Amino acid sequence: SLIALLPGDGIGPEVVTQARRVLEALSLDLVFEEAPVGGAAYLQEGHPLPAATLALAKRADAVLFGAVGDPRFDAVERAFRPEQAILGLRRELGLFANLRPAKLFPGLEDASALKPEVAGAIDMVIVRELNGDVYFGEKGRRTTLEGLREGYDLMSYDEREVERIARVGFETARVRKKRLCSVDKANVLETSQLWRDVVNSVATEYPDVHLTHMYVDNAAMQLVRNPGQFDVIVTGNLFGDILSDQASMCAGSIGMLPSAALDTGKKGLYEPIHGSAPDIAGQGKANPCATILSAAMMLRYSLDDETSAERIERAVEGALTAGVRTPDLGGTATTAEMADAILARLA
Amino acid sequence: SLIALLPGDGIGPEVVTQARRVLEALSLDLVFEEAPVGGAAYLQEGHPLPAATLALAKRADAVLFGAVGDPRFDAVERAFRPEQAILGLRRELGLFANLRPAKLFPGLEDASALKPEVAGAIDMVIVRELNGDVYFGEKGRRTTLEGLREGYDLMSYDEREVERIARVGFETARVRKKRLCSVDKANVLETSQLWRDVVNSVATEYPDVHLTHMYVDNAAMQLVRNPGQFDVIVTGNLFGDILSDQASMCAGSIGMLPSAALDTGKKGLYEPIHGSAPDIAGQGKANPCATILSAAMMLRYSLDDETSAERIERAVEGALTAGVRTPDLGGTATTAEMADAILARLA
Ligand SMILES: CC(C)[C@H](C(=O)O)[C@@H](O)C(=O)O
Ligand SMILES: CC(C)[C@H](C(=O)O)[C@@H](O)C(=O)O
Repeated sequence: SLIALLPGDGIGPEVVTQARRVLEALSLDLVFEEAPVGGAAYLQEGHPLPAATLALAKRADAVLFGAVGDPRFDAVERAFRPEQAILGLRRELGLFANLRPAKLFPGLEDASALKPEVAGAIDMVIVRELNGDVYFGEKGRRTTLEGLREGYDLMSYDEREVERIARVGFETARVRKKRLCSVDKANVLETSQLWRDVVNSVATEYPDVHLTHMYVDNAAMQLVRNPGQFDVIVTGNLFGDILSDQASMCAGSIGMLPSAALDTGKKGLYEPIHGSAPDIAGQGKANPCATILSAAMMLRYSLDDETSAERIERAVEGALTAGVRTPDLGGTATTAEMADAILARLA
Repeated sequence: SLIALLPGDGIGPEVVTQARRVLEALSLDLVFEEAPVGGAAYLQEGHPLPAATLALAKRADAVLFGAVGDPRFDAVERAFRPEQAILGLRRELGLFANLRPAKLFPGLEDASALKPEVAGAIDMVIVRELNGDVYFGEKGRRTTLEGLREGYDLMSYDEREVERIARVGFETARVRKKRLCSVDKANVLETSQLWRDVVNSVATEYPDVHLTHMYVDNAAMQLVRNPGQFDVIVTGNLFGDILSDQASMCAGSIGMLPSAALDTGKKGLYEPIHGSAPDIAGQGKANPCATILSAAMMLRYSLDDETSAERIERAVEGALTAGVRTPDLGGTATTAEMADAILARLA
């Protein structure tokens, strides 16, 4: 299989390098091809998502992505900022379903700001829609009747978009604890009201899954109060952006958590949920676990290799249990040392 | 001064009754007039915000509001649901500035899901815009070109709306620790980009306040990781809805926290941040503190009576310090007993 490696900015290259080492150690039939993306690509090619990079991502069986974002480009016109690369890839590849597992890894109870008994109960998957919502609606600047500058963005979902992500939510819940919580703001938004109606009608096909609905403000509270109550959450692009980052932080392990962005088939883009962390880039301080675990998700979802996925996951847990820790987890291991410890446990 | 009392649904009447007792005990020159709102008003008058209730709220110097919301009306057409009452009041009275203080009360360290040392550092005010954003933009259902049902809501802000809420943010920070964090999603939304531009230009008038910007997903993480870093947050209606509820829960005291919604003058609506809690309504279990503290905010902002406001606040702290607790705080005091304890300490 062809794997596109898109390291990107900041710590992206460092963590992707280590994930590649882990994949190579498995001696699978993988071919790697690398291309620039984000601020790095903008500097080299004048665009955060160069045509050749997009073409590689389309051609590949799966994409392993590092991180994009660099404050040096804050003043650049929106279309050329690093973030446009990830938005463009999601859109162009039709990667509509974002799976973001959040769980507390054994031994990392202290890393969370939540009390150990609260954080310890976290084991959920947030299913976030990635191709619609206010992210991709019509947007721009205009002048009001009174001559004032105004910014606007259209939020919308149609029934097909909601239906397909709802199905991913139900399917995900079905193979877990069979509890799905759909998050919206139906007391205020028409987009959410349609969302809720469609989720309810898809629910009739999944009588074995227990469905609940929650307003987003309440969900943000419940993720702090008692995150252990959630099994699978399904929500739109904007609410999913906010809640999945919040949930990861509740689990205390922003450097530990992987994610997958899937299309309707087997193609996926896999990336750590953390960002490019320019402040620690190039210093060997980055935690490679989230990217290594993203590689495991890639094997599971795009390459149908559950065995290798679990081998990686067990190796990561083994390294943690042995006490190997990067600075974000309170330890002193370097990026490469953390990966070494995982490699040593792959056997 | 004329105070409109709008008790509303669920526990609203119980907590407003206790707040009125506290206000009456201060022997100020206050006249109270009560009117139905929310689901209660819909049952009595066929509308969640009857004309007479709105007229009273307009005539009054300030509004003390309980809570609205009742799942029995979930299937009612949106325009007649309880929540429309609060949205209508905010809009009709021009209550654009929502102040939501979040702090941990002494002795309540255990109530938070966060570690005591993390929760103990919380002392912030969230300034949320209340009259614009995706809440009040054009919204509805339509059919796409492919014949699919679609829901849509327009998000927008114009420069005048952003400027006036930004000023409230800077003024609030100026009399606190002089740190203002503006939260947006400028890497994706044009509305946010305008927001950021305007906040930056208002900042030139407040050189004494240290301004930072944060993306909303990062803010949701930071509110868990290290909420003590925030002094004042200023943000739009939707992000403010989510983050202020999250911040309150971090402080562990959803039954303790008050809020004010202010117009450009002295008029304000004051309400607890908690909802109508229909599950415990009528059982004497509700915590009246948030409403009593909202009455204190009313004295401060609408009636220029800082002395009485502080008397109430000290009495609430005194009752807590003495160990009087409603069930939400782990105690057994009833709604009335909690208020009694506060009344006893007003002297
Ligand atoms: C970089 C940004 C555009 C992106 C998003 O908002 O989707 C990021 O926050 C994420 O969650 O992957
Ligand atoms: C009831 C609802 C419409 C309201 C809002 O979203 O503003 C509430 O959540 C609040 O924060 O006051």
